[in-house]
Amino acid sequence: MSTRPDAKQRLLTVARELFARRGYDGASVRDICARAKVNLGAVTYYFGSKAVLYTAVLTELLGPIAARVQAAAQAPRPPLDRIETIVREFFEHIRRNPDMPCIMAREMASGREIAAPVKQMMGRALPLLAGVIAEGQSDGSIRPGDPLLLALSTVAQPVYLNLARRAITVVAGLDQSDEATFQRVVEHAVETVRAALETR
Amino acid sequence: MSTRPDAKQRLLTVARELFARRGYDGASVRDICARAKVNLGAVTYYFGSKAVLYTAVLTELLGPIAARVQAAAQAPRPPLDRIETIVREFFEHIRRNPDMPCIMAREMASGREIAAPVKQMMGRALPLLAGVIAEGQSDGSIRPGDPLLLALSTVAQPVYLNLARRAITVVAGLDQSDEATFQRVVEHAVETVRAALETR
Repeated sequence: MSTRPDAKQRLLTVARELFARRGYDGASVRDICARAKVNLGAVTYYFGSKAVLYTAVLTELLGPIAARVQAAAQAPRPPLDRIETIVREFFEHIRRNPDMPCIMAREMASGREIAAPVKQMMGRALPLLAGVIAEGQSDGSIRPGDPLLLALSTVAQPVYLNLARRAITVVAGLDQSDEATFQRVVEHAVETVRAALETR
Repeated sequence: MSTRPDAKQRLLTVARELFARRGYDGASVRDICARAKVNLGAVTYYFGSKAVLYTAVLTELLGPIAARVQAAAQAPRPPLDRIETIVREFFEHIRRNPDMPCIMAREMASGREIAAPVKQMMGRALPLLAGVIAEGQSDGSIRPGDPLLLALSTVAQPVYLNLARRAITVVAGLDQSDEATFQRVVEHAVETVRAALETR
């Protein structure tokens, strides 16, 4: 039995890498097919178009996050503990998908309409997180404030600390590809989110 | 007397727009010159190369931030008040330079080495902010923690809330081009940064 992934999965994997490295416009169908070792018609055959391939890459990349946020948000634990788990899940997901910050940054910077999988992920994860924050406000553990803005400020920690990784390495000498440094950054983010949200 | 900016400044302005909208590779010298209404040799004449033009755009865009952070960091006021001013300066600078989040996101996502003006700005602004945080830790107003990581978590607020603007508008219905919404987001960011840093 072959352990080599099939052509469709190879296209998804290669396209993700090239979209992250060169952007949507910079990654040509020709290059994607050449690197995936499939013929030039494979993108059309499996996906219909480059745009649909891009959507499929985003869905594969972002789909699991919403599910993980949902599981953490619904756990029978105090709100701040659930939020801590959600922050850890973001770091863990980005660690397993190192192309994610680049692809998301390019998506945010593009002049195009926000892609459907990004809208779906944010449209599901943010209200879930805001819901946990509102619960914490009801039980008195979380300070007052717009739950949706507080959710955005929470997500800002894992997103920025990963997005700015290379700049942080150059400027602050913190190389998160080193396991101990990565863990230190995660613990810092968790403490910061707790401090930002907790009632005093 | 003409109020029309000179060719060099027109090139900087047009290049900034095109680099933000299409990225470094996507913005051709031909397009930049055509839109700036200068002949095709003008980039070489004024800057030497497209790469130097890009550096000049970044310097014009980022140079003023470091100066503003420095002024705020050195004001004779309590540390948390100075940090509040720095957060407000970031929002204000991005408001006056709406292309900044796109250009910075593309810069972070690019596989290239971090551009010199980005390194310079972060290399100057982050230690200044970390210094104010360390002062606050000494006088007991700011909680313990690595001052540089706390500085990064502080900057994360204005950066992410602006970078994710379009997604936030679509998902949360918060349109920051509306003045009242913009002010609400700034006040939220200031409160969140204070809560994240303050000793309890």
